[in-house]
Amino acid sequence: MPNATRSRFTANGLITITTDFGTRDGYVGAMKGVMLTIDPTLRLVDLAHDLPAQDVRHAALVLRSACPRFPVGTVHLAVVDPGVGGPRAPIALVAGGHAFVGPDNGLLSLVAAGLGRGAARRIARRGPLARFLPAAPSPTFHGRDVFAPTAAVLACGRVPFSGLGAEVRPARLTIARPRREGAWVRGEITHFDRFGNAVTNLAGEHLPARRARATVAVGARERVRLVETYAAAPVGELVAVVGSDGWLEIAVRDGSAREQSGLATGVPVRVGPARTA
Amino acid sequence: MPNATRSRFTANGLITITTDFGTRDGYVGAMKGVMLTIDPTLRLVDLAHDLPAQDVRHAALVLRSACPRFPVGTVHLAVVDPGVGGPRAPIALVAGGHAFVGPDNGLLSLVAAGLGRGAARRIARRGPLARFLPAAPSPTFHGRDVFAPTAAVLACGRVPFSGLGAEVRPARLTIARPRREGAWVRGEITHFDRFGNAVTNLAGEHLPARRARATVAVGARERVRLVETYAAAPVGELVAVVGSDGWLEIAVRDGSAREQSGLATGVPVRVGPARTA
Amino acid sequence: MPNATRSRFTANGLITITTDFGTRDGYVGAMKGVMLTIDPTLRLVDLAHDLPAQDVRHAALVLRSACPRFPVGTVHLAVVDPGVGGPRAPIALVAGGHAFVGPDNGLLSLVAAGLGRGAARRIARRGPLARFLPAAPSPTFHGRDVFAPTAAVLACGRVPFSGLGAEVRPARLTIARPRREGAWVRGEITHFDRFGNAVTNLAGEHLPARRARATVAVGARERVRLVETYAAAPVGELVAVVGSDGWLEIAVRDGSAREQSGLATGVPVRVGPARTA
Repeated sequence: MPNATRSRFTANGLITITTDFGTRDGYVGAMKGVMLTIDPTLRLVDLAHDLPAQDVRHAALVLRSACPRFPVGTVHLAVVDPGVGGPRAPIALVAGGHAFVGPDNGLLSLVAAGLGRGAARRIARRGPLARFLPAAPSPTFHGRDVFAPTAAVLACGRVPFSGLGAEVRPARLTIARPRREGAWVRGEITHFDRFGNAVTNLAGEHLPARRARATVAVGARERVRLVETYAAAPVGELVAVVGSDGWLEIAVRDGSAREQSGLATGVPVRVGPARTA
Repeated sequence: MPNATRSRFTANGLITITTDFGTRDGYVGAMKGVMLTIDPTLRLVDLAHDLPAQDVRHAALVLRSACPRFPVGTVHLAVVDPGVGGPRAPIALVAGGHAFVGPDNGLLSLVAAGLGRGAARRIARRGPLARFLPAAPSPTFHGRDVFAPTAAVLACGRVPFSGLGAEVRPARLTIARPRREGAWVRGEITHFDRFGNAVTNLAGEHLPARRARATVAVGARERVRLVETYAAAPVGELVAVVGSDGWLEIAVRDGSAREQSGLATGVPVRVGPARTA
Repeated sequence: MPNATRSRFTANGLITITTDFGTRDGYVGAMKGVMLTIDPTLRLVDLAHDLPAQDVRHAALVLRSACPRFPVGTVHLAVVDPGVGGPRAPIALVAGGHAFVGPDNGLLSLVAAGLGRGAARRIARRGPLARFLPAAPSPTFHGRDVFAPTAAVLACGRVPFSGLGAEVRPARLTIARPRREGAWVRGEITHFDRFGNAVTNLAGEHLPARRARATVAVGARERVRLVETYAAAPVGELVAVVGSDGWLEIAVRDGSAREQSGLATGVPVRVGPARTA
């Protein structure tokens, strides 16, 4: 159960917005309008809107990477919500001094877990929130009718986190964990970024102590070179590099690993000690 | 003619920006720079920039959906302007306490009509605006040289709406209206959103009183199931649902109605009473 | 060497952000978080994020077009950085009262040159910046770990431009210059915008004094009509028009010159006097 420390949240007036709505429709705009109507002094920050449609896992990884960079006191509104209108609950979560608002489909679980033990509450339409929500929220757009107003009232302090609703245990997304196989560690590709880089679930610490002598195998490719930077790779060569969040990535310099090498989410990636030639 | 009430506008310092310029060029940036040069304290809100290129109708529907969600006093700058440099006038419009600035090609007409009777003025380069506009506006980019400065001066209050130019009767966009056909109402698909959902001109009130017993026909498909939420639909089935703005939509759960069913703008959609089996 | 005038910069608290990161990942969000953690009152303005990936030249042209429209005192953060982690230095540049932060790969050179003689400094991780930068910046994401914090400290005035590091002579991008060929001037297509318009390195002043009688030749097409506005062109015809930044563009009204005419970057465009029929 959350104690006072785990659920402590003092708003700084900033709200980040992350969706898979794209920017060819008015959905993101409607959410912004709802929030600024509740408090026109709120400071809205677009985090990302072109997330792959309805890909909760990709979105959860994006949130884990970006949100902790914001100052404590920020509210992070995130809507990737294929189950809208179904049984999944609307929730708010506090962890590490940040607040998160969105559907309880695992979307918020990775970033919250990374910030330490937190607390979650189900967003109840009755109670102190009632006067900020429409009488009949659209069953197909909770982003506008439930999540946006909740984020706004949290960010301007009109309703405290504890007033949102009953405590809940939020759904958790499972990301495969790397496994030891003798002297090797076996992981997999979790997602691709815009540049076609394949991000894996292998962290820098899974590499052998003497990195320069590590061997990386990607799918059927037995020896992929591990480099320090993209710039250190010959143009066009498939290489491995520890990316900016500490995860091992498979990349092609000045190119796309996704397009040029037929890799896909789930393809195994193994790291191990140098082989004797 | 506009009376004092219809043209009342008190700026709140917010400007939303809606364009079909995308974000691979500097066009949106140049407009933002122009506005912040006139008043660096203005608060700019990106509404949508990836609207289908030169599709005035899609843009007008987006504005109608999103702008009324913003607080009264907001200026909405919108530029989808295939006729730039031609005879269409630059205009500003006030309705329901909101202001709109853009080309007089119908773009602003749907949202303004939805906000009640308003007033419109042609943007005159002479008069009080003169010192905020370049001496020779580019004939190909009124967004930067005419609309952005006009939006900025309205939003910071340096020129009142009544000072912009002569009153005009703005161009109106025609959206087909549903027709009664016996016990049925016949409408059509007006546009598609990012998820491939087909939005129609049929509103919830066109459905029979007992919704659960309504029949929906889409093009040659005689019986499309009407559901309350996407989540209530089996994955992959084409269904009808009343969307978040109250319009009947044709959707595929976790998929794209546009890609999976060959639907297009203008395809007829009919709603009627339940058939006897 | 920079003197006091050339390197004068007084921040206004605005930071524009231009990247090729897209908005399907958390990269842009992470940069925003870093800046707002240094100073939550900074005002961040998205300039463009969907620049063609790793296309330094396109990005440099976008910056040249948009940044000078912002008020003096703005910091422009720009990251298109295929050589990240390699020998290219991180730099900051001041010109015309604006500041620019990014990689020293030519990205910032066109906009700075257009603003007059400026001054550049290498971003040194030691010295006054040290406490704002991570102890071990990621070798693959200087945008987040080096450029964003540098932009933030410049914009909030915590470190003056002169405190960033040693003076340097920044790398310069070369854009082909038009050449005279008898009565003709020969230029080329430098890039395409979102609408498929081909922008050239020919300026309005390269056209004959009597524009109405100019001849424009594009690749193998000997006579492309020069019009004042897109609206003056028949739909579907390839025409030439002086664009909003003063460069000659090749366009198709209500269409894409890029898709409909097989034009490409580097294709020659010539302007000359009217021919006798």
